[in-house]
Amino acid sequence: MKQIDVKKNILQTNDILAKENKELLDSKGIFTVNLLGSPGAGKTSILEQLIKSMKDNVKLAVIEGDLYTTKDAERIESQGVEVIQVNTGGACHLDALMIKEALNNLELDDMKFLVIENVGNLVCPASYDLSEDIKITVLSITEGNDKPLKYPSMFQKSEVVIVNKMDLMEFTNFSMDEFYRDIKSLRNDIIVFEVSSRTGEGFQQLRDYLLNKIKEKGGVTNA
Amino acid sequence: MKQIDVKKNILQTNDILAKENKELLDSKGIFTVNLLGSPGAGKTSILEQLIKSMKDNVKLAVIEGDLYTTKDAERIESQGVEVIQVNTGGACHLDALMIKEALNNLELDDMKFLVIENVGNLVCPASYDLSEDIKITVLSITEGNDKPLKYPSMFQKSEVVIVNKMDLMEFTNFSMDEFYRDIKSLRNDIIVFEVSSRTGEGFQQLRDYLLNKIKEKGGVTNA
Repeated sequence: MKQIDVKKNILQTNDILAKENKELLDSKGIFTVNLLGSPGAGKTSILEQLIKSMKDNVKLAVIEGDLYTTKDAERIESQGVEVIQVNTGGACHLDALMIKEALNNLELDDMKFLVIENVGNLVCPASYDLSEDIKITVLSITEGNDKPLKYPSMFQKSEVVIVNKMDLMEFTNFSMDEFYRDIKSLRNDIIVFEVSSRTGEGFQQLRDYLLNKIKEKGGVTNA
Repeated sequence: MKQIDVKKNILQTNDILAKENKELLDSKGIFTVNLLGSPGAGKTSILEQLIKSMKDNVKLAVIEGDLYTTKDAERIESQGVEVIQVNTGGACHLDALMIKEALNNLELDDMKFLVIENVGNLVCPASYDLSEDIKITVLSITEGNDKPLKYPSMFQKSEVVIVNKMDLMEFTNFSMDEFYRDIKSLRNDIIVFEVSSRTGEGFQQLRDYLLNKIKEKGGVTNA
Protein backbone atom coordinates (compact mmCIF):
# COMPACT_ATOMS: atom_id res chain seq x y z
CA MET A 1 0.00 0.00 0.00
CA LYS A 2 1.30 3.43 -0.95
CA GLN A 3 0.80 6.11 1.63
CA ILE A 4 1.02 9.81 1.02
CA ASP A 5 2.29 11.85 3.93
CA VAL A 6 0.56 15.13 3.18
CA LYS A 7 2.15 17.07 6.02
CA LYS A 8 5.66 15.91 5.09
CA ASN A 9 5.11 16.89 1.43
CA ILE A 10 3.79 20.31 2.40
CA LEU A 11 6.82 20.94 4.60
CA GLN A 12 9.25 19.73 1.90
CA THR A 13 7.71 22.07 -0.67
CA ASN A 14 7.90 24.87 1.87
CA ASP A 15 11.58 24.20 2.51
CA ILE A 16 12.41 24.30 -1.21
CA LEU A 17 10.68 27.66 -1.62
CA ALA A 18 12.19 29.01 1.60
CA LYS A 19 15.66 28.12 0.29
CA GLU A 20 15.01 30.04 -2.95
CA ASN A 21 13.81 33.08 -0.99
CA LYS A 22 16.83 32.85 1.30
CA GLU A 23 19.25 32.88 -1.63
CA LEU A 24 17.59 36.04 -2.94
CA LEU A 25 17.66 37.75 0.46
CA ASP A 26 21.27 36.70 1.08
CA SER A 27 22.35 38.01 -2.34
CA LYS A 28 20.94 41.42 -1.36
CA GLY A 29 22.40 41.29 2.17
CA ILE A 30 18.98 41.65 3.80
CA PHE A 31 18.81 40.55 7.44
CA THR A 32 15.43 38.87 7.91
CA VAL A 33 13.46 38.20 11.10
CA ASN A 34 10.44 35.91 11.53
CA LEU A 35 8.52 37.59 14.39
CA LEU A 36 6.30 35.17 16.32
CA GLY A 37 4.03 35.08 19.37
CA SER A 38 0.50 34.67 20.73
CA PRO A 39 -2.31 36.97 19.65
CA GLY A 40 -1.88 40.12 21.72
CA ALA A 41 1.69 39.43 22.89
CA GLY A 42 2.64 42.78 21.39
CA LYS A 43 4.40 41.92 18.11
CA THR A 44 3.07 44.96 16.23
CA SER A 45 3.67 47.36 19.14
CA ILE A 46 7.26 46.17 19.39
CA LEU A 47 7.68 46.66 15.64
CA GLU A 48 6.30 50.20 15.92
CA GLN A 49 8.88 51.03 18.60
CA LEU A 50 11.73 49.50 16.58
CA ILE A 51 10.76 51.24 13.36
CA LYS A 52 10.68 54.64 15.08
CA SER A 53 14.23 54.26 16.34
CA MET A 54 15.71 52.44 13.33
CA LYS A 55 14.15 53.79 10.15
CA ASP A 56 16.62 56.67 9.88
CA ASN A 57 19.56 54.28 10.15
CA VAL A 58 18.59 51.48 7.83
CA LYS A 59 16.18 50.86 4.96
CA LEU A 60 13.66 48.36 6.29
CA ALA A 61 10.38 46.77 5.24
CA VAL A 62 7.69 44.66 6.87
CA ILE A 63 5.61 41.72 5.67
CA GLU A 64 2.45 41.57 7.79
CA GLY A 65 0.69 38.22 8.16
CA ASP A 66 -2.96 38.15 9.19
CA LEU A 67 -5.95 35.91 8.59
CA TYR A 68 -8.17 38.50 6.88
CA THR A 69 -7.64 42.08 8.09
CA THR A 70 -5.12 44.79 7.25
CA LYS A 71 -5.18 46.29 10.76
CA ASP A 72 -1.52 45.65 11.62
CA ALA A 73 -0.28 46.68 8.16
CA GLU A 74 -2.09 50.01 8.51
CA ARG A 75 -0.36 50.61 11.84
CA ILE A 76 3.05 49.90 10.27
CA GLU A 77 2.35 51.91 7.11
CA SER A 78 1.55 54.97 9.22
CA GLN A 79 5.20 54.83 10.38
CA GLY A 80 6.30 55.59 6.83
CA VAL A 81 7.97 52.30 5.95
CA GLU A 82 7.18 49.89 3.14
CA VAL A 83 4.75 47.16 4.16
CA ILE A 84 3.15 44.24 2.32
CA GLN A 85 0.00 42.66 3.72
CA VAL A 86 -0.35 38.91 3.35
CA ASN A 87 -3.77 37.50 4.24
CA THR A 88 -3.75 33.76 4.85
CA GLY A 89 -7.50 33.44 4.30
CA GLY A 90 -7.97 31.71 7.63
CA ALA A 91 -4.77 29.63 7.69
CA CYS A 92 -2.91 29.65 11.01
CA HIS A 93 0.56 30.55 9.73
CA LEU A 94 2.51 32.12 6.88
CA ASP A 95 4.41 29.88 4.45
CA ALA A 96 7.36 30.35 2.08
CA LEU A 97 5.13 30.71 -1.02
CA MET A 98 3.36 33.69 0.57
CA ILE A 99 6.78 35.21 1.33
CA LYS A 100 7.94 34.57 -2.26
CA GLU A 101 4.95 36.52 -3.57
CA ALA A 102 5.49 39.30 -1.06
CA LEU A 103 9.19 39.59 -2.04
CA ASN A 104 8.13 40.00 -5.69
CA ASN A 105 6.23 43.10 -4.59
CA LEU A 106 8.92 44.71 -2.45
CA GLU A 107 11.69 47.11 -3.47
CA LEU A 108 14.63 44.96 -2.38
CA ASP A 109 17.42 47.22 -3.63
CA ASP A 110 19.15 48.99 -0.72
CA MET A 111 16.83 47.24 1.75
CA LYS A 112 18.85 45.87 4.67
CA PHE A 113 16.28 44.71 7.23
CA LEU A 114 13.08 42.75 6.67
CA VAL A 115 10.66 41.78 9.42
CA ILE A 116 7.99 39.17 8.74
CA GLU A 117 5.26 39.42 11.39
CA ASN A 118 3.61 36.01 11.49
CA VAL A 119 0.02 35.14 12.43
CA GLY A 120 -0.57 35.29 16.20
CA ASN A 121 -0.16 31.66 17.18
CA LEU A 122 2.28 29.71 19.39
CA VAL A 123 1.88 26.40 17.55
CA CYS A 124 1.53 26.29 13.75
CA PRO A 125 4.10 28.89 12.58
CA ALA A 126 6.93 26.97 14.29
CA SER A 127 6.94 24.35 11.52
CA TYR A 128 7.31 26.72 8.56
CA ASP A 129 10.70 28.13 7.58
CA LEU A 130 10.06 31.53 5.98
CA SER A 131 13.70 32.05 4.84
CA GLU A 132 14.49 34.13 7.89
CA ASP A 133 17.94 34.56 9.45
CA ILE A 134 16.48 34.32 12.95
CA LYS A 135 13.16 33.62 14.65
CA ILE A 136 12.15 36.00 17.46
CA THR A 137 9.27 34.97 19.72
CA VAL A 138 7.46 37.56 21.82
CA LEU A 139 6.09 36.43 25.18
CA SER A 140 4.14 38.93 27.28
CA ILE A 141 4.28 38.90 31.06
CA THR A 142 0.48 38.69 31.27
CA GLU A 143 0.50 35.33 29.44
CA GLY A 144 2.30 33.62 32.34
CA ASN A 145 5.73 32.06 32.70
CA ASP A 146 4.46 28.54 31.94
CA LYS A 147 4.20 29.16 28.20
CA PRO A 148 7.71 28.08 27.03
CA LEU A 149 7.23 24.55 28.37
CA LYS A 150 3.62 24.40 27.14
CA TYR A 151 4.58 25.48 23.60
CA PRO A 152 8.18 24.21 23.44
CA SER A 153 8.71 23.92 19.69
CA MET A 154 8.27 27.65 19.04
CA PHE A 155 10.74 28.63 21.76
CA GLN A 156 13.27 25.91 20.89
CA LYS A 157 13.44 27.20 17.32
CA SER A 158 13.85 30.86 18.36
CA GLU A 159 17.27 32.52 18.57
CA VAL A 160 15.70 35.37 20.58
CA VAL A 161 12.81 35.79 23.02
CA ILE A 162 11.42 39.24 23.76
CA VAL A 163 9.64 39.35 27.12
CA ASN A 164 7.14 42.18 26.68
CA LYS A 165 4.83 44.13 29.04
CA MET A 166 7.47 44.17 31.79
CA ASP A 167 5.60 47.18 33.26
CA LEU A 168 2.71 44.86 34.23
CA MET A 169 4.89 42.45 36.22
CA GLU A 170 3.54 43.50 39.63
CA PHE A 171 -0.04 42.65 38.61
CA THR A 172 0.77 39.06 37.67
CA ASN A 173 2.31 35.99 39.29
CA PHE A 174 4.93 35.71 36.51
CA SER A 175 8.17 34.27 37.90
CA MET A 176 11.31 35.45 36.10
CA ASP A 177 13.33 32.72 37.85
CA GLU A 178 11.06 29.99 36.53
CA PHE A 179 10.96 31.61 33.09
CA TYR A 180 14.77 31.67 32.78
CA ARG A 181 15.09 28.14 34.14
CA ASP A 182 12.53 26.81 31.62
CA ILE A 183 13.69 28.77 28.60
CA LYS A 184 17.32 27.77 29.16
CA SER A 185 16.25 24.13 29.51
CA LEU A 186 14.69 24.38 26.04
CA ARG A 187 17.56 26.26 24.41
CA ASN A 188 20.62 27.16 26.39
CA ASP A 189 21.98 29.78 23.96
CA ILE A 190 18.71 31.74 23.63
CA ILE A 191 19.02 35.53 23.91
CA VAL A 192 16.40 37.29 26.05
CA PHE A 193 15.37 40.95 25.94
CA GLU A 194 13.05 42.31 28.64
CA VAL A 195 11.02 45.24 27.28
CA SER A 196 7.82 47.22 27.62
CA SER A 197 6.45 48.67 24.40
CA ARG A 198 4.22 50.90 26.55
CA THR A 199 7.07 52.56 28.48
CA GLY A 200 9.89 52.02 25.95
CA GLU A 201 11.95 50.16 28.57
CA GLY A 202 14.60 47.78 27.18
CA PHE A 203 14.42 48.82 23.53
CA GLN A 204 17.92 50.30 23.31
CA GLN A 205 19.51 46.87 23.85
CA LEU A 206 17.15 45.19 21.37
CA ARG A 207 17.84 47.88 18.75
CA ASP A 208 21.62 47.57 19.24
CA TYR A 209 21.42 43.79 18.88
CA LEU A 210 19.46 44.08 15.62
CA LEU A 211 21.68 46.81 14.15
CA ASN A 212 24.69 44.63 14.88
CA LYS A 213 23.06 41.67 13.12
CA ILE A 214 22.22 43.88 10.13
CA LYS A 215 25.86 45.03 9.93
CA GLU A 216 27.11 41.42 10.15
CA LYS A 217 24.89 40.50 7.20
CA GLY A 218 26.53 43.24 5.15
CA GLY A 219 24.01 46.00 5.62
CA VAL A 220 25.62 49.44 5.81
CA THR A 221 23.94 51.50 8.50
CA ASN A 222 24.69 55.00 9.68
CA ALA A 223 23.85 54.14 13.29
CA MET B 1 -8.95 13.96 -12.53
CA LYS B 2 -10.00 12.89 -9.05
CA GLN B 3 -9.07 15.27 -6.30
CA ILE B 4 -8.98 14.42 -2.63
CA ASP B 5 -9.83 17.26 -0.30
CA VAL B 6 -7.90 16.16 2.76
CA LYS B 7 -9.11 18.95 5.01
CA LYS B 8 -12.76 18.32 4.10
CA ASN B 9 -12.39 14.60 4.82
CA ILE B 10 -10.77 15.27 8.19
CA LEU B 11 -13.56 17.63 9.17
CA GLN B 12 -16.27 15.18 8.02
CA THR B 13 -14.76 12.39 10.12
CA ASN B 14 -14.57 14.78 13.03
CA ASP B 15 -18.24 15.70 12.67
CA ILE B 16 -19.34 12.05 12.66
CA LEU B 17 -17.40 11.34 15.86
CA ALA B 18 -18.57 14.58 17.47
CA LYS B 19 -22.20 13.57 16.77
CA GLU B 20 -21.65 10.20 18.48
CA ASN B 21 -20.10 11.90 21.52
CA LYS B 22 -22.95 14.41 21.62
CA GLU B 23 -25.58 11.63 21.69
CA LEU B 24 -23.82 10.08 24.65
CA LEU B 25 -23.51 13.38 26.53
CA ASP B 26 -27.13 14.30 25.77
CA SER B 27 -28.37 10.92 26.99
CA LYS B 28 -26.66 11.61 30.32
CA GLY B 29 -27.87 15.23 30.48
CA ILE B 30 -24.32 16.58 30.66
CA PHE B 31 -23.94 20.27 29.73
CA THR B 32 -20.66 20.59 27.83
CA VAL B 33 -18.52 23.65 27.18
CA ASN B 34 -15.63 23.98 24.70
CA LEU B 35 -13.38 26.61 26.37
CA LEU B 36 -11.21 28.51 23.89
CA GLY B 37 -8.74 31.40 23.78
CA SER B 38 -5.16 32.51 23.17
CA PRO B 39 -2.29 31.13 25.21
CA GLY B 40 -2.34 33.04 28.49
CA ALA B 41 -5.85 34.50 28.11
CA GLY B 42 -6.68 32.90 31.46
CA LYS B 43 -8.71 29.79 30.57
CA THR B 44 -7.33 27.67 33.40
CA SER B 45 -7.54 30.49 35.97
CA ILE B 46 -11.19 31.05 35.06
CA LEU B 47 -11.84 27.33 35.40
CA GLU B 48 -10.22 27.32 38.84
CA GLN B 49 -12.52 30.14 39.99
CA LEU B 50 -15.61 28.40 38.56
CA ILE B 51 -14.76 25.03 40.07
CA LYS B 52 -14.31 26.55 43.54
CA SER B 53 -17.79 28.08 43.48
CA MET B 54 -19.62 25.27 41.62
CA LYS B 55 -18.19 21.93 42.73
CA ASP B 56 -20.47 21.69 45.76
CA ASN B 57 -23.54 22.30 43.59
CA VAL B 58 -22.94 20.06 40.62
CA LYS B 59 -20.78 17.08 39.68
CA LEU B 60 -18.37 18.35 37.08
CA ALA B 61 -15.30 17.15 35.21
CA VAL B 62 -12.65 18.69 33.00
CA ILE B 63 -10.86 17.51 29.87
CA GLU B 64 -7.56 19.40 29.57
CA GLY B 65 -6.03 19.82 26.13
CA ASP B 66 -2.33 20.59 25.84
CA LEU B 67 0.45 19.90 23.37
CA TYR B 68 2.70 17.92 25.70
CA THR B 69 2.52 18.95 29.35
CA THR B 70 0.15 18.15 32.22
CA LYS B 71 0.55 21.57 33.89
CA ASP B 72 -3.06 22.71 33.55
CA ALA B 73 -4.49 19.31 34.48
CA GLU B 74 -2.44 19.35 37.69
CA ARG B 75 -3.87 22.76 38.59
CA ILE B 76 -7.42 21.48 38.04
CA GLU B 77 -6.83 18.17 39.85
CA SER B 78 -5.67 20.05 42.95
CA GLN B 79 -9.21 21.48 43.13
CA GLY B 80 -10.53 17.97 43.79
CA VAL B 81 -12.47 17.39 40.58
CA GLU B 82 -12.07 14.67 37.99
CA VAL B 83 -9.76 15.66 35.14
CA ILE B 84 -8.49 13.87 32.03
CA GLN B 85 -5.36 15.13 30.30
CA VAL B 86 -5.31 14.93 26.50
CA ASN B 87 -1.93 15.64 24.89
CA THR B 88 -2.17 16.45 21.21
CA GLY B 89 1.52 15.65 20.58
CA GLY B 90 2.09 19.02 19.00
CA ALA B 91 -1.22 19.43 17.15
CA CYS B 92 -2.81 22.87 17.46
CA HIS B 93 -6.32 21.78 18.55
CA LEU B 94 -8.35 19.00 20.13
CA ASP B 95 -10.57 16.83 17.92
CA ALA B 96 -13.64 14.66 18.48
CA LEU B 97 -11.64 11.40 18.53
CA MET B 98 -9.56 12.70 21.43
CA ILE B 99 -12.79 13.61 23.24
CA LYS B 100 -14.25 10.14 22.53
CA GLU B 101 -11.25 8.54 24.19
CA ALA B 102 -11.42 10.92 27.12
CA LEU B 103 -15.14 10.20 27.63
CA ASN B 104 -14.34 6.48 27.77
CA ASN B 105 -12.16 7.27 30.77
CA LEU B 106 -14.55 9.53 32.68
CA GLU B 107 -17.22 8.56 35.24
CA LEU B 108 -20.21 9.98 33.35
CA ASP B 109 -22.93 8.80 35.76
CA ASP B 110 -24.30 11.73 37.78
CA MET B 111 -21.95 14.13 35.98
CA LYS B 112 -23.82 17.24 34.89
CA PHE B 113 -21.15 19.65 33.69
CA LEU B 114 -18.15 18.98 31.47
CA VAL B 115 -15.60 21.60 30.47
CA ILE B 116 -13.17 20.87 27.63
CA GLU B 117 -10.25 23.29 27.81
CA ASN B 118 -8.84 23.46 24.30
CA VAL B 119 -5.26 24.19 23.22
CA GLY B 120 -4.38 27.90 23.50
CA ASN B 121 -4.97 29.10 19.95
CA LEU B 122 -7.36 31.58 18.29
CA VAL B 123 -7.34 29.87 14.89
CA CYS B 124 -7.27 26.08 14.56
CA PRO B 125 -9.73 24.96 17.28
CA ALA B 126 -12.55 26.96 15.66
CA SER B 127 -12.95 24.34 12.90
CA TYR B 128 -13.37 21.30 15.16
CA ASP B 129 -16.71 20.47 16.77
CA LEU B 130 -15.96 18.66 20.04
CA SER B 131 -19.62 17.76 20.76
CA GLU B 132 -20.05 20.75 23.05
CA ASP B 133 -23.34 22.53 23.78
CA ILE B 134 -21.64 25.92 23.61
CA LYS B 135 -18.26 27.42 22.77
CA ILE B 136 -16.89 30.01 25.19
CA THR B 137 -13.93 32.11 24.06
CA VAL B 138 -11.79 33.94 26.61
CA LEU B 139 -10.26 37.25 25.55
CA SER B 140 -7.99 39.07 28.00
CA ILE B 141 -7.85 42.86 28.15
CA THR B 142 -4.07 42.80 27.68
CA GLU B 143 -4.46 41.16 24.24
CA GLY B 144 -6.16 44.25 22.80
CA ASN B 145 -9.67 44.96 21.52
CA ASP B 146 -8.70 44.27 17.88
CA LYS B 147 -8.66 40.50 18.32
CA PRO B 148 -12.32 39.65 17.44
CA LEU B 149 -11.99 41.13 13.94
CA LYS B 150 -8.50 39.67 13.48
CA TYR B 151 -9.64 36.15 14.45
CA PRO B 152 -13.32 36.31 13.44
CA SER B 153 -14.15 32.63 13.01
CA MET B 154 -13.50 31.76 16.65
CA PHE B 155 -15.68 34.59 17.94
CA GLN B 156 -18.47 34.04 15.39
CA LYS B 157 -18.81 30.43 16.51
CA SER B 158 -18.88 31.29 20.23
CA GLU B 159 -22.14 31.68 22.15
CA VAL B 160 -20.24 33.40 24.98
CA VAL B 161 -17.16 35.61 25.30
CA ILE B 162 -15.47 36.06 28.67
CA VAL B 163 -13.45 39.28 28.81
CA ASN B 164 -10.79 38.52 31.43
CA LYS B 165 -8.18 40.60 33.31
CA MET B 166 -10.60 43.53 33.67
CA ASP B 167 -8.43 44.70 36.61
CA LEU B 168 -5.64 45.58 34.13
CA MET B 169 -7.83 47.85 31.99
CA GLU B 170 -6.15 51.09 33.12
CA PHE B 171 -2.73 49.88 31.96
CA THR B 172 -3.86 49.18 28.38
CA ASN B 173 -5.49 51.07 25.50
CA PHE B 174 -8.31 48.50 25.29
CA SER B 175 -11.53 50.19 24.16
CA MET B 176 -14.71 48.55 25.48
CA ASP B 177 -16.79 50.58 23.00
CA GLU B 178 -14.81 49.25 20.03
CA PHE B 179 -14.84 45.74 21.49
CA TYR B 180 -18.66 45.69 21.81
CA ARG B 181 -19.12 47.25 18.37
CA ASP B 182 -16.86 44.63 16.74
CA ILE B 183 -18.10 41.60 18.64
CA LYS B 184 -21.75 42.48 17.93
CA SER B 185 -20.90 42.93 14.24
CA LEU B 186 -19.57 39.36 14.20
CA ARG B 187 -22.43 37.83 16.20
CA ASN B 188 -25.25 39.98 17.45
CA ASP B 189 -26.61 37.50 20.03
CA ILE B 190 -23.26 36.85 21.72
CA ILE B 191 -23.28 36.95 25.53
CA VAL B 192 -20.39 38.79 27.20
CA PHE B 193 -19.13 38.43 30.77
CA GLU B 194 -16.52 40.88 32.08
CA VAL B 195 -14.39 39.24 34.77
CA SER B 196 -11.06 39.23 36.54
CA SER B 197 -9.83 35.85 37.72
CA ARG B 198 -7.29 37.70 39.89
CA THR B 199 -9.87 39.75 41.86
CA GLY B 200 -12.90 37.47 41.39
CA GLU B 201 -14.89 40.33 39.82
CA GLY B 202 -17.79 39.26 37.59
CA PHE B 203 -17.81 35.55 38.42
CA GLN B 204 -21.19 35.50 40.14
CA GLN B 205 -22.99 36.32 36.86
CA LEU B 206 -20.95 33.78 34.91
CA ARG B 207 -21.63 31.08 37.51
CA ASP B 208 -25.38 31.85 37.50
CA TYR B 209 -25.47 31.67 33.70
CA LEU B 210 -23.74 28.28 33.68
CA LEU B 211 -25.88 26.81 36.49
CA ASN B 212 -28.98 27.87 34.57
CA LYS B 213 -27.69 26.17 31.42
CA ILE B 214 -26.91 23.01 33.41
CA LYS B 215 -30.47 22.99 34.82
CA GLU B 216 -31.95 23.49 31.34
CA LYS B 217 -30.01 20.46 30.11
CA GLY B 218 -31.61 18.39 32.88
CA GLY B 219 -28.89 18.52 35.48
CA VAL B 220 -30.24 18.64 39.05
CA THR B 221 -28.24 21.09 41.08
CA ASN B 222 -28.64 22.11 44.70
CA ALA B 223 -27.61 25.69 43.96
